[in-house]
Amino acid sequence: MVDILHRIGVTTPAPETTTQRVYDALTTVEGLAAWWTEKTTGDAGLGGELEFRFPDGGFDMEVTELRPRERVVWRVVGGPDEWVGTTIEWELCQDGDWTVVLFAHRGWREPVEFMHHCSTKWGSFLLSLKSLVEDGEGAPSPRDVKIDNWG
Amino acid sequence: MVDILHRIGVTTPAPETTTQRVYDALTTVEGLAAWWTEKTTGDAGLGGELEFRFPDGGFDMEVTELRPRERVVWRVVGGPDEWVGTTIEWELCQDGDWTVVLFAHRGWREPVEFMHHCSTKWGSFLLSLKSLVEDGEGAPSPRDVKIDNWG
Repeated sequence: MVDILHRIGVTTPAPETTTQRVYDALTTVEGLAAWWTEKTTGDAGLGGELEFRFPDGGFDMEVTELRPRERVVWRVVGGPDEWVGTTIEWELCQDGDWTVVLFAHRGWREPVEFMHHCSTKWGSFLLSLKSLVEDGEGAPSPRDVKIDNWG
Repeated sequence: MVDILHRIGVTTPAPETTTQRVYDALTTVEGLAAWWTEKTTGDAGLGGELEFRFPDGGFDMEVTELRPRERVVWRVVGGPDEWVGTTIEWELCQDGDWTVVLFAHRGWREPVEFMHHCSTKWGSFLLSLKSLVEDGEGAPSPRDVKIDNWG
């Protein structure tokens, strides 16, 4: 089993509200649509299912853990074979004026080429999340940063 | 042991020269300085040692493998404890008009928070490499994209 790991820090002129704003961007359909993919639908509550759609397919996630301003976990229940059964974890913590986000996409069976792609893509989408909270403007699909011939 | 993995694709109006240009950006001091850190010095030849410096420290790499337009491997011989002894591998291949780069930073002992940071940072620097070859302009340190409170 191999994992994709990332870390971003988010800082705004109102640091006391930053963690909540990051949490909202991870736990509302509107928030998710503003940094990951505009085609986000479903139920963002605990036990709910979220559908994320991209030009070439998409992912269905079950929300398995929600700890306000601290932790969000999704389980992948639909999408490419390599993704189904993996989990995506978001840990939030404050470090001075920064909200630090530790990201892990865990449980890949093999370090296939698609995993390399998804790792870079996740990093780029995390910077989209950072821009959304800091500057009010993310780069969700289909306006996302293209990293290779797969998108 | 855990690995950081990434994938980018580079495409230019002259695809027959793209792979060579990516390879040059990985195997010359001038190329490396244009996408990773402006403070790059040393010997980029096989068995040589390269020194990469950043505002807060740096890395020394031994060049352990050079296969023109196909593969580059560095071994980390100086830098933070977590990095020393790890290896950094670059695999290049052509896929139609694209040059695909598979990147692996292998041999981390533990998935520490610093590894999360380095994963996102590598992804961002790989996009700097892509921009350098595609548009002639990378974003090396100290002009690099800041991802968190560590830089």
